[in-house]
Amino acid sequence: MTTQELATAFAALCKAGQFEEAGKQHWSDDIVSCEPMTGDMARLQGRAAVDAKGAWWYANHEIHSVKTEGPYVHGDQFILRFQMDVTPKGGARMQMDEMGVYSVAGGKIVEERFFFGG
Amino acid sequence: MTTQELATAFAALCKAGQFEEAGKQHWSDDIVSCEPMTGDMARLQGRAAVDAKGAWWYANHEIHSVKTEGPYVHGDQFILRFQMDVTPKGGARMQMDEMGVYSVAGGKIVEERFFFGG
Repeated sequence: MTTQELATAFAALCKAGQFEEAGKQHWSDDIVSCEPMTGDMARLQGRAAVDAKGAWWYANHEIHSVKTEGPYVHGDQFILRFQMDVTPKGGARMQMDEMGVYSVAGGKIVEERFFFGG
Repeated sequence: MTTQELATAFAALCKAGQFEEAGKQHWSDDIVSCEPMTGDMARLQGRAAVDAKGAWWYANHEIHSVKTEGPYVHGDQFILRFQMDVTPKGGARMQMDEMGVYSVAGGKIVEERFFFGG
């Protein structure tokens, strides 16, 4: 599977709202996930740790909608844009706009790195 | 100047259509520019070479409009999205959708890497 093929398949699952299935099918077991913040969640490694972050996210946010755009491909990397309409638990509804940069090796996603819009 | 400040200033110039001024102010003299293709223009290094690519682009495309979105920031990198309405010389008018990933060091952009959308 080329990076373009993987990117297209991963994006299709995200566009269908199947984010967990996308990770299940296409992450390396050693997946590294980097968020633009400090603290415990800034860099996580391994499927168990990244799955736990996902579980935390879903438990603490009500997700009204997600729009996924892409993929945008260059070499062994691709980008997806996510526009999310969410309400954090106990917080105010907000619009999030972020980019995910995915690095591919051996036909699997080995790193995801998120960039936040202003 | 932090990466967030540089990203905001660079994006503001792009949004105003001042792409050449953006590079002039914020590129390192050793700027590396990477396109998702093979051949001579796949990787260029140095302000003179990258300026020449820009000159080639402007000489060979009629640019009807460019919409810039961003910046999206993570650490020492940021992303801009460009949606372009262009007519290549002798070709058909087309819509281009791409992402630029910019890497910053010492307060300057040291690399720009473009990702093409489907």
